[in-house]
Amino acid sequence: MKAEIIAVGTEILLGQIVNTNASFLARQLALLGIDAEQQQVVGDNGERLDAALTLAEGRADLVILIGGLGPTADDITKQVLAQHIGKPLVTNFQAIEKLLAFAQQRQTPLTANDRVQAALPFDAQPLANRVGLAVGAISETPKATYVLLPGPPREFTVMVEEQLTPYLLTHRGEQQVLKSKVLRFYGIGESLLTTDLADLIDAQSEPTIASYIKEHEVTLRLTAKAADDAAAEALIAPIEQEILAREGQYFYGYGDDNSLAQELANALANAHLTITAAESLTAGAFQAALADIPGISTWFKGGFVTYSNHTKATLLGLDEATIDRDGAVSEATALAMAEAAREKVDADLAVSMTGVAGPGPDDGVDAGTVWIGLAKRGEKSQATLYHFPGARNDVRDRAVKAAMFAALRAIQPQ
Amino acid sequence: MKAEIIAVGTEILLGQIVNTNASFLARQLALLGIDAEQQQVVGDNGERLDAALTLAEGRADLVILIGGLGPTADDITKQVLAQHIGKPLVTNFQAIEKLLAFAQQRQTPLTANDRVQAALPFDAQPLANRVGLAVGAISETPKATYVLLPGPPREFTVMVEEQLTPYLLTHRGEQQVLKSKVLRFYGIGESLLTTDLADLIDAQSEPTIASYIKEHEVTLRLTAKAADDAAAEALIAPIEQEILAREGQYFYGYGDDNSLAQELANALANAHLTITAAESLTAGAFQAALADIPGISTWFKGGFVTYSNHTKATLLGLDEATIDRDGAVSEATALAMAEAAREKVDADLAVSMTGVAGPGPDDGVDAGTVWIGLAKRGEKSQATLYHFPGARNDVRDRAVKAAMFAALRAIQPQ
Repeated sequence: MKAEIIAVGTEILLGQIVNTNASFLARQLALLGIDAEQQQVVGDNGERLDAALTLAEGRADLVILIGGLGPTADDITKQVLAQHIGKPLVTNFQAIEKLLAFAQQRQTPLTANDRVQAALPFDAQPLANRVGLAVGAISETPKATYVLLPGPPREFTVMVEEQLTPYLLTHRGEQQVLKSKVLRFYGIGESLLTTDLADLIDAQSEPTIASYIKEHEVTLRLTAKAADDAAAEALIAPIEQEILAREGQYFYGYGDDNSLAQELANALANAHLTITAAESLTAGAFQAALADIPGISTWFKGGFVTYSNHTKATLLGLDEATIDRDGAVSEATALAMAEAAREKVDADLAVSMTGVAGPGPDDGVDAGTVWIGLAKRGEKSQATLYHFPGARNDVRDRAVKAAMFAALRAIQPQ
Repeated sequence: MKAEIIAVGTEILLGQIVNTNASFLARQLALLGIDAEQQQVVGDNGERLDAALTLAEGRADLVILIGGLGPTADDITKQVLAQHIGKPLVTNFQAIEKLLAFAQQRQTPLTANDRVQAALPFDAQPLANRVGLAVGAISETPKATYVLLPGPPREFTVMVEEQLTPYLLTHRGEQQVLKSKVLRFYGIGESLLTTDLADLIDAQSEPTIASYIKEHEVTLRLTAKAADDAAAEALIAPIEQEILAREGQYFYGYGDDNSLAQELANALANAHLTITAAESLTAGAFQAALADIPGISTWFKGGFVTYSNHTKATLLGLDEATIDRDGAVSEATALAMAEAAREKVDADLAVSMTGVAGPGPDDGVDAGTVWIGLAKRGEKSQATLYHFPGARNDVRDRAVKAAMFAALRAIQPQ
């Protein structure tokens, strides 16, 4: 099966929005093993859209149209397609009921334009819109199969994942599901991880193994097609186990929406431990990231931003002469910061970050040099030296992530 | 003049990268008043790229190709175009010298593949690559003008701004420059701002006025085409003055790369004032954002994250019984936090943020309710109540921005 994506919208041609929908759909088609050799972008113009359809159906058997299903005058995709394949638009009852309920709730009348959102080409299969009003559609004709999808990314991605993907799996004569598992790693680079796993990646079939880098972390996505969820999970499990056996020391959690902060918050809650921090170069970024997690207030009560030697002394009670002697960026200062913060807040755990974010060296210490300290109630404190690459913000972000990972491992030793 | 953009790259068709280059170029073409009615994406495939060229030259007179200029085997754009327009590839001397210097520096030999990066179609005009090695080109033929641009976004955007844009301005028979000025606003929504300025926006010609929303701020971009920079600035000035006369209370600075944190850092440095903060719901995000700015250490020494009532008492010395009586989210607590932080750090200025980020109300206070306190040495402290819309992270980010804007106005009163 060959697919072609046509994104419809003058706002894309003017560069007002980026065509992320095409990218998302392309990834999904690749996962499904469907070739998509061309993409087009056309404006809200009937003639040019019609020409784009003629072009696409000449080189693909699955033509996917994105955008232009809304209620305004420039939303013409559905109308142009219906005319192109010679089928009238008919109202879909479930979609019109949803529109009526919405209008009633808003106490506004439903206009003729509004109603178009519930229409689809005669004998097309509707694609319900769980998070919006415009209904999608699949229209099978002898020439090609046409798919209509809404443009707003939230409506689009849900419809692709929940409606189009199952259709495509079935349509290809395979009663199958597509299942993904996302593994998240910290502290290892993408090239090293994929080199370690080269034999698995080279031999991949079901599941496929794809690696991504995002914000100084590496993610692996294992994806399998199978008859049902259980069968897909059974395909994924042995590969996942092998990966964890090799790379477990860097693994910290599952899921696209997961984060080191989320896993640290979970670990604190499970272990009933409170945490605090004394931050120098990161200046509050660790604490702010942890406080992104709802419900953290039970385990995080507050902490310190000690950007200068003087505030390390006045806020934490460290001796300024000792800091000057040992250096602000030193094992001794990192340990003292973590221990003082833990005692002052009376927390179970404290992390400290002190280093040089850059640009350029500070006081003879190279940019990227960071000491991270960790104090735990009843245990010996520890500090670790890091040399982080990158610009000022990269160094600060890497320091926050390293401190989160260190705290996580202090709660859940391997 | 009609343009068509062809992005070349299998990684776009697989969804591995988002086609942000096309979006950037589309915006630039729109600013230049050049119609771009179509976009295509094709993979690294000679036959399909050749067909895409035939298609594009049939409907546009300016065909812009993005990507595939590098040294690897799948970089074929230049070769396919040269063959398509029947011109041999010839080496550009400046580009080959740059490649040789690079190879010498790395002490690696220059391969035949590497050398292709310095080649361009016979009699094409080179587009120098200031930040990379692959040279771009403009090839004028009777059928159409073809442009070759590199795929890496940093090389691409610099080449578009510094080389292609001046060419297009000249090529259109207009010896003109395109000049933009970006005005940044905080504290007013896009729809209100554009309503206030509706008469100017409706009447726009030179400069054009475009509004954008980004991270709870609104930006206006004024763009004028004129014979030279001074003439463009003269066109922009009266409109800018009129906008500032009406909306000055929300204006905080100029430039795409600017930010409230940057302006606050500048203002602190200019006024020789130090700052600190006591953060509850934002948990360090204000201080972390301020510390993004290099050189801030002279004006920011440290501060407090007081997420619980207990740390407001232990770290800042507030009376926990008073907090319980007044409420953690109250004018009295915001004032006490700012004053205590200022005194403890001995800073000239202190801001405090206390509120409910959500999700859901806390202790009977609705999510989005935030008090921001401001203490300045020798002046009466003030606190302001905000009701921020949005999810947990929106509320926190809005609180940080509101506190920055409040601090900025405390230093630079209007």
